[in-house]
Amino acid sequence: MTRGRFITLEGGEGAGKSTQIRRLAARLQASGLKVLLTREPGGSPGAEEIRSLLVTGEPGRWTPMTEALLVTAARADHVARTVIPALERGDWVISDRFYDSTIAYQGYAHGLGAEKMEDLQRLALGDLAPDLTLILDLPVDVGLARAGYREGQVKGGEDRFERMPKSFHEALADGFRQIAETHKDRCALIDAAGDADAVEAAIWAVAQARLGLG
Amino acid sequence: MTRGRFITLEGGEGAGKSTQIRRLAARLQASGLKVLLTREPGGSPGAEEIRSLLVTGEPGRWTPMTEALLVTAARADHVARTVIPALERGDWVISDRFYDSTIAYQGYAHGLGAEKMEDLQRLALGDLAPDLTLILDLPVDVGLARAGYREGQVKGGEDRFERMPKSFHEALADGFRQIAETHKDRCALIDAAGDADAVEAAIWAVAQARLGLG
Ligand SMILES: Nc1ncnc2c1ncn2[C@@H]1O[C@H](COP(=O)(O)OP(=O)(O)OP(=O)(O)O)[C@@H](O)[C@H]1O
Ligand SMILES: Nc1ncnc2c1ncn2[C@@H]1O[C@H](COP(=O)(O)OP(=O)(O)OP(=O)(O)O)[C@@H](O)[C@H]1O
Ligand SMILES: [Mg+2]
Ligand SMILES: [Mg+2]
Repeated sequence: MTRGRFITLEGGEGAGKSTQIRRLAARLQASGLKVLLTREPGGSPGAEEIRSLLVTGEPGRWTPMTEALLVTAARADHVARTVIPALERGDWVISDRFYDSTIAYQGYAHGLGAEKMEDLQRLALGDLAPDLTLILDLPVDVGLARAGYREGQVKGGEDRFERMPKSFHEALADGFRQIAETHKDRCALIDAAGDADAVEAAIWAVAQARLGLG
Repeated sequence: MTRGRFITLEGGEGAGKSTQIRRLAARLQASGLKVLLTREPGGSPGAEEIRSLLVTGEPGRWTPMTEALLVTAARADHVARTVIPALERGDWVISDRFYDSTIAYQGYAHGLGAEKMEDLQRLALGDLAPDLTLILDLPVDVGLARAGYREGQVKGGEDRFERMPKSFHEALADGFRQIAETHKDRCALIDAAGDADAVEAAIWAVAQARLGLG
């Protein structure tokens, strides 16, 4: 049994991750692969319980370090209970966010430091790494407009991160670009400003080239 | 303003921590000190929410690593929101469990390794350390009998850890002894098999000697 491949999609709020993950999954399934779609924080029953502590409530509800530990706790559960079993069955796994979100959100945008957050991921997950990470890059205003964000506005529900200040989202986008630059072998920076069909085509071209698909 | 002192009580289930923390607090208050009693997991509103994920449900609900990250997330919140503000006000803080419980439970008894768990604490908390750690040592059977434990029995409520197998509790007690041995300057191993008055007297003698109390 060949182990499946592990693909992650990353980017700021409203970059198009959820839209593109479905399109990529459809293309892979059309190539005859068995694909599991999953997401973070979440992706297993325990991790979904932790998620609800993270994505609701006031932006200042958790300190950056508590937030980093909670998302990593959720990830450890997601990996042990969902991702690894699927890869070992031979399924391909595509996750909407993974550990680069911790490097970008808590490491860069909250200022805890990328290296410290990388140490935390290694401590929690050992050397598990995605085979390919697609980082969707978009001007912050465009992404927040897509996500329906207005500064200071309370939408209720799962919008704790969207309600962080604009400067946070700028630092986040810079952080994701930095990650793409630092981990060139694993990551591809995708221009996500075009329409959904254009972004889908760009992603598929990268996936074919990097993963040796037909 | 002199910073307060930070004292932690550690030990397995039913060792007498909650009983002795109240007695120690009363003695310190009688010496004219302002004392804050707190506990882990918990001790701040956010940490208490994380606590409920940890202490309820099946023993196998979380993997050891997820558990380690969740208790450390709760600790980061507890430290930032409760412990440090109190110490900076000049209050003394006594916590019913602190990071040695992570070294003992997840590092030793669950087998993740003491060193890895110490790295995690340093990553999360920097160099914050208790001024004095009292480790209550007791034969496992005596502690579990005090805690009302019967192997395989479901009490409901906050008994997820008590329901771990007996071998887990043995490894835990050994782990705590190991910690006392490794960190002699900070820790004191207290024989907790005597009656509550005898244990209180032993703790007070150590506290006076180590913290220079009158
Ligand atoms: N290329 C695109 N052009 C215009 N709008 C798009 C594009 N891709 C997605 N959208 C729309 O933008 C909104 C956000 O897209 P999507 O939910 O896929 O982003 P996301 O990165 O998953 O956001 P979040 O971080 O909030 O989960 C949706 O309304 C979606 O229909
Ligand atoms: N020295 C002692 N001798 C006999 N019984 C004791 C002694 N100290 C405490 N007890 C009793 O043992 C039980 C457990 O004590 P306590 O709750 O203080 O322990 P604990 O270490 O806080 O336990 P847990 O880990 O479950 O919180 C209580 O019923 C308490 O009254
Ligand atoms: Mg989405
Ligand atoms: Mg107790």
